Amino acid sequence: MSWETIAAQKRDALKASIPTEWVITADILPPDTQADVTGFPKESGWFTERELEITSTPAPQILLNIATGSWSSEEVTRVFCKAAAAAHQLTNCLSEILFDKAIARAQELDKYQRTTGRTKGPFHGLPISIKDNFNLIGCDSTVGFASLVNDPATYNSTLTDLLLEAGAVLYVKTNVPTAMMIAESVNNVFGRTVNPRNRKLTSGGSSGGESALIAFGGSRLGVGTDIGGSLRIPAACTGIFTIRPSSGRFPNFQTRSGLAGQEAVNSVNGPMARSLDEIILWAKTIVGQKPWVNDPKCLPIPWRTVTPKRTLKLAVLWQDEQVTPTPPVARALKETVAKLRQAGHEVVDWDPKWHSKLVSILGRMFVADGGKSVRKLLDATEEPFRPEMEAYSQATEMGVYDMWQLQLERNGICKAYLDQWNASGIDAILCPTTPYSGVENGKFGYIGYTGVFNVLDYPAVSFPCGVSADKIIDAAYPSDESLGKVDTKIRNGYNADSIHGMPVSLQLVGRRLEDESALMMTEVILQALG
Amino acid sequence: MSWETIAAQKRDALKASIPTEWVITADILPPDTQADVTGFPKESGWFTERELEITSTPAPQILLNIATGSWSSEEVTRVFCKAAAAAHQLTNCLSEILFDKAIARAQELDKYQRTTGRTKGPFHGLPISIKDNFNLIGCDSTVGFASLVNDPATYNSTLTDLLLEAGAVLYVKTNVPTAMMIAESVNNVFGRTVNPRNRKLTSGGSSGGESALIAFGGSRLGVGTDIGGSLRIPAACTGIFTIRPSSGRFPNFQTRSGLAGQEAVNSVNGPMARSLDEIILWAKTIVGQKPWVNDPKCLPIPWRTVTPKRTLKLAVLWQDEQVTPTPPVARALKETVAKLRQAGHEVVDWDPKWHSKLVSILGRMFVADGGKSVRKLLDATEEPFRPEMEAYSQATEMGVYDMWQLQLERNGICKAYLDQWNASGIDAILCPTTPYSGVENGKFGYIGYTGVFNVLDYPAVSFPCGVSADKIIDAAYPSDESLGKVDTKIRNGYNADSIHGMPVSLQLVGRRLEDESALMMTEVILQALG
Repeated sequence: MSWETIAAQKRDALKASIPTEWVITADILPPDTQADVTGFPKESGWFTERELEITSTPAPQILLNIATGSWSSEEVTRVFCKAAAAAHQLTNCLSEILFDKAIARAQELDKYQRTTGRTKGPFHGLPISIKDNFNLIGCDSTVGFASLVNDPATYNSTLTDLLLEAGAVLYVKTNVPTAMMIAESVNNVFGRTVNPRNRKLTSGGSSGGESALIAFGGSRLGVGTDIGGSLRIPAACTGIFTIRPSSGRFPNFQTRSGLAGQEAVNSVNGPMARSLDEIILWAKTIVGQKPWVNDPKCLPIPWRTVTPKRTLKLAVLWQDEQVTPTPPVARALKETVAKLRQAGHEVVDWDPKWHSKLVSILGRMFVADGGKSVRKLLDATEEPFRPEMEAYSQATEMGVYDMWQLQLERNGICKAYLDQWNASGIDAILCPTTPYSGVENGKFGYIGYTGVFNVLDYPAVSFPCGVSADKIIDAAYPSDESLGKVDTKIRNGYNADSIHGMPVSLQLVGRRLEDESALMMTEVILQALG
Repeated sequence: MSWETIAAQKRDALKASIPTEWVITADILPPDTQADVTGFPKESGWFTERELEITSTPAPQILLNIATGSWSSEEVTRVFCKAAAAAHQLTNCLSEILFDKAIARAQELDKYQRTTGRTKGPFHGLPISIKDNFNLIGCDSTVGFASLVNDPATYNSTLTDLLLEAGAVLYVKTNVPTAMMIAESVNNVFGRTVNPRNRKLTSGGSSGGESALIAFGGSRLGVGTDIGGSLRIPAACTGIFTIRPSSGRFPNFQTRSGLAGQEAVNSVNGPMARSLDEIILWAKTIVGQKPWVNDPKCLPIPWRTVTPKRTLKLAVLWQDEQVTPTPPVARALKETVAKLRQAGHEVVDWDPKWHSKLVSILGRMFVADGGKSVRKLLDATEEPFRPEMEAYSQATEMGVYDMWQLQLERNGICKAYLDQWNASGIDAILCPTTPYSGVENGKFGYIGYTGVFNVLDYPAVSFPCGVSADKIIDAAYPSDESLGKVDTKIRNGYNADSIHGMPVSLQLVGRRLEDESALMMTEVILQALG
């Protein structure tokens, strides 16, 4: 079978797994030309008031409502299945649909609660969406390759097991780019996921199925992964929250990888949600399950309580000397800094002297195998490289000796960066998550603002800062001075009209393995932003 | 200059750095034929009673005596310099001699204490010996290569800085094998370090200068490193204590490596001493200094208090299906298990089903660069490969893709090993540290018993178990059944006469990053052994 046939059959099967009653009828289906579909749940009349109440309730309250018996897991699950079905039909955000299993599981959980008077665990009854690469027995984890279609997992990822033990209901898996190595969510099997806030724009990648689903309201809490920005970029593209944790805090074992065995920079997983509270709930819960007992890469560091500091010393990375943030992002950073100063926080400048080297190191590490890992997965069905994967199709394999030299270079910069941090006496770095508030499908051009922190392994929270792009105020860059080739391309592609109204996210970066502190400081900052 | 000339000059300079008054005169110098020189300090009359009292006082008491003013750091330092000078002349254990600097430093510390009434830190005034590869500004770190002679460090290792901040006196650096990748301490620059308990036997490697120095009494507390057994093998060869910690507990940054940039299996450092208390003192002190603030690879895990368990469940690894422990080691393990059972501990058998694969993985990781790193350091002076380094001279470089597959294989086994551990419900594994109680110079043939725990990254304490080799009882292997080629070679080389009286060490292995627990359980076991 050709890869095209495999892909077409997989897409058809996915479509067919949506029950008829949850297929949006033509009369209320927004036309393809309608950019923003986030209003659909409220405006279409397709959802009841009760259903809308459930999807707009934050996860902690949903859990409480189920635990106290006012809501059943079955009802909640059915609502999120329906909302996810809608999200998929409007943004193409799913890769696996497990509604039947999820509803059966919810019924079991309800029964357990009725019978025992107890909940199964801290996520009892809550539907949680997971990115395609998390293994769930019986389901594909294609990560966008035709060759991995119809190769259902025979074991669960460690995280999947923990979620199930905690009582979560797994109901969908979400779309990713090929090998999860593109900053937009597009692949030859499922096609492209688009942004529900504006379907002409990307939902980001690689966790961009997840971000589209959550931003639409089809999930309260989802799990993605990040090796160069794959949690933060889609969160920023859709205006939701996430944390790229330090490696070893959340279990990442037995997940599908596009670059299996690559460890020079570690992929990590983390939560995505519409509020910081939901992110913290997920983090506390997962670490509270002691994932290090079963995941040999996890660190036995419990989730620690940190006392909020009343005033923070923040370093602002205005630009990284590679790519100028687009006008709305530059303005958002400025306005945010002004508010932080007003609230009494100290703000200094961050010298990005190591950033270009860190970005270069990351790029070399990704393609150190000469693209062989990706090529093998493509060749099995003669699937072609996507144009976004040119770096992989063109790469030359490194020898291990050169890899060791690259690792030495990275270690030297990690030390220099830490020394710079210590010398500055700062609590955190504040910077753009990406150069964009939003960007048209196919145009996402730079992952440097996120990727440097993967190499450094620092925790980084991405949060919407409350500022949105404005086609008038943000019509043009304040200066024409380009920082280089990539910057010029992004400047030339900038179109203020196309992104009007898109929220801007910023990134707060803490010390390695002080993930608790990074989240706590984000809370303090959100309070200052009002 | 030829490598031979460089090496000869370095050896001469080292010899010349011993002050005349500490050169052992011919009349009391033990003849080369005298195997055991550990009696020299007491029997030669070369040391005063006071000097012998100081060298035989454990580190915690030395620190107390200095802190209370009953001893001065200068006096203590002079005594350990003299003892180290003797150790070097009898075992060839040093690579750098810093007596003048050390005495000046001790005088400064004494002055500081007199002036301020305070000590500088938890190691105030204590002479601590360090392995050759720790950088100390102004000193060579040759790790046995002629090309690295006369290339003094321009920066300190992170650990060196911490020791100095804690008030330690650094007075010697200790010998290692070429690139620290041989299990005996022999190289083309300094030659061979021998075992002070029996100079026909090896002091082990790669921290074998350190083990010889400490076993002789020329240091109370020293620091070595371990990537395949380099702390535990020399500790076992000389009957002293050590812990190979989990990676990330003790700072290893900015040290010289023979395989720089290699990270598939991480080198770690750790203390070596004649008592477990001194090991614990070192560990608590170093972690108490928060090394993670300055070392980007260190983990922010404080030194945790663990409550001793009254009864342990231990799994015994009788043999690893590769190499049969030599008769004294097999007997020591048996006798130890009997005593542990008698003391009420539960003992079960450990199935070594993953060990041969782990040993093979370790070997492949060491030579993954095709020996290039070592070859470059040799080629600079046309220094030849030592015969013990044949694996490096013969190796073919791997490509990064194959390295990724090797890392995947390792991860799978790490998971399977952890699952086996969890299923067995054990607290620790008890096993030989090496197949030997002692072994003749040039004959050390197998690092599998230590190396597997480097791949797994489990903490492993090596401790003398109180049993010594006996040429009558341990005359022969109880069975002729060989486990394979390496086993046969070791069996054929076994000579009960040559190792008579040598102490046997065993290894206690705990869960990853539970180093505190591994040390606590060793205490419990030592109590049971009486």
